[in-house]
Amino acid sequence: MVLDPSTLPDVSDLTVGILGGTGDQGRGLAYRLAAARELAALPGADGNLSGGDNGYAAAADLVIVAVPWEGHRELVASLAQPLAGKVVVDCVNPLGFDSHGPYPLAVPEGSAAQQAAGLLPDSRVCAAFHHVSAVLLADPQVERIDLDVLVLGEDREAVAQVQALAYRIPNMRGLYAGRLRNARQVEALTANLIAINKRYKAHAGIRVTDL
Amino acid sequence: MVLDPSTLPDVSDLTVGILGGTGDQGRGLAYRLAAARELAALPGADGNLSGGDNGYAAAADLVIVAVPWEGHRELVASLAQPLAGKVVVDCVNPLGFDSHGPYPLAVPEGSAAQQAAGLLPDSRVCAAFHHVSAVLLADPQVERIDLDVLVLGEDREAVAQVQALAYRIPNMRGLYAGRLRNARQVEALTANLIAINKRYKAHAGIRVTDL
Repeated sequence: MVLDPSTLPDVSDLTVGILGGTGDQGRGLAYRLAAARELAALPGADGNLSGGDNGYAAAADLVIVAVPWEGHRELVASLAQPLAGKVVVDCVNPLGFDSHGPYPLAVPEGSAAQQAAGLLPDSRVCAAFHHVSAVLLADPQVERIDLDVLVLGEDREAVAQVQALAYRIPNMRGLYAGRLRNARQVEALTANLIAINKRYKAHAGIRVTDL
Repeated sequence: MVLDPSTLPDVSDLTVGILGGTGDQGRGLAYRLAAARELAALPGADGNLSGGDNGYAAAADLVIVAVPWEGHRELVASLAQPLAGKVVVDCVNPLGFDSHGPYPLAVPEGSAAQQAAGLLPDSRVCAAFHHVSAVLLADPQVERIDLDVLVLGEDREAVAQVQALAYRIPNMRGLYAGRLRNARQVEALTANLIAINKRYKAHAGIRVTDL
């Protein structure tokens, strides 16, 4: 089957906020989405996007949650009201690290995304952007990022918006990859990509084959 | 980093047995590995490989466990003695299915592979071949299978053998992807690939990018 991103919604006018935009992944996503969107990602942004003001970021149409796992629950819960009605994209990977490297942490709700969905009953929560390398995202020498963004969620229209957002970054595709109950392994797979990066000195992402 | 499969061990003389070789995935793997190995995969095999006799399969040098999740524990436990000292490759995906599609089942040991490792203390247990489409494997019209096999395990030499085995199938690569404690999400990701297959009418696999 040939993918046809032209069937996805137009997200060029959508404002995007990033919670945790000062962290590596959030800053990289902000830079990359702003570049793809001609520096118009956030209202008032002048090319120097910042997610430092989480209240400000939460005022956007679509809000990406890129905060550390520690504090995820508290931060998301505190923003339930401003995030009501919005598409919220959780890209948090609950991982621990010890002398043997990274490993997935147990999450009572199953996954960071399911935790967010439970805390934000009036938002349209999706999960995506787990595997994008913060290093590649933030490197202005890297023009294209060869990977697929796996998008999970229950709300088909919200999922399609997030897919469309991924497609705005050169060489990225945004693919529907299941319901939120299947988010845990997508988050946890980041541990495997870190193991791959360490072994092969890479910034690994994944592509889905046969499409 | 450029991958160099020539640094992997030569597995051309290794005999490969498949437990569960009559199931879709096991039969497909048997067909494909036999084709790659000029029909010499199993001692005495005449191109019509069968995993029907699990005791026979367990006599090989390297044994792939491709049985249904139901009964995995009992079967593996029953073969602890013949599997002692061997490389055992678990490729079982513990999944449930309901009206919303596939989802990962909880496994007390963490993953099918960790369960096998616990039951086979004298074997060298790896996890691999979770995402290979049984349909593509078994289709003689399909000459190349574009995907990467993620290989997990604690025993570096055993992992390298399994990587080398994957490389024998045209267009496949075998990549180290972490320790067994990171097998769960690799097994569970099969649920996402099934969701992708359903949405996009595909036989999805994954490729790791940037290497």
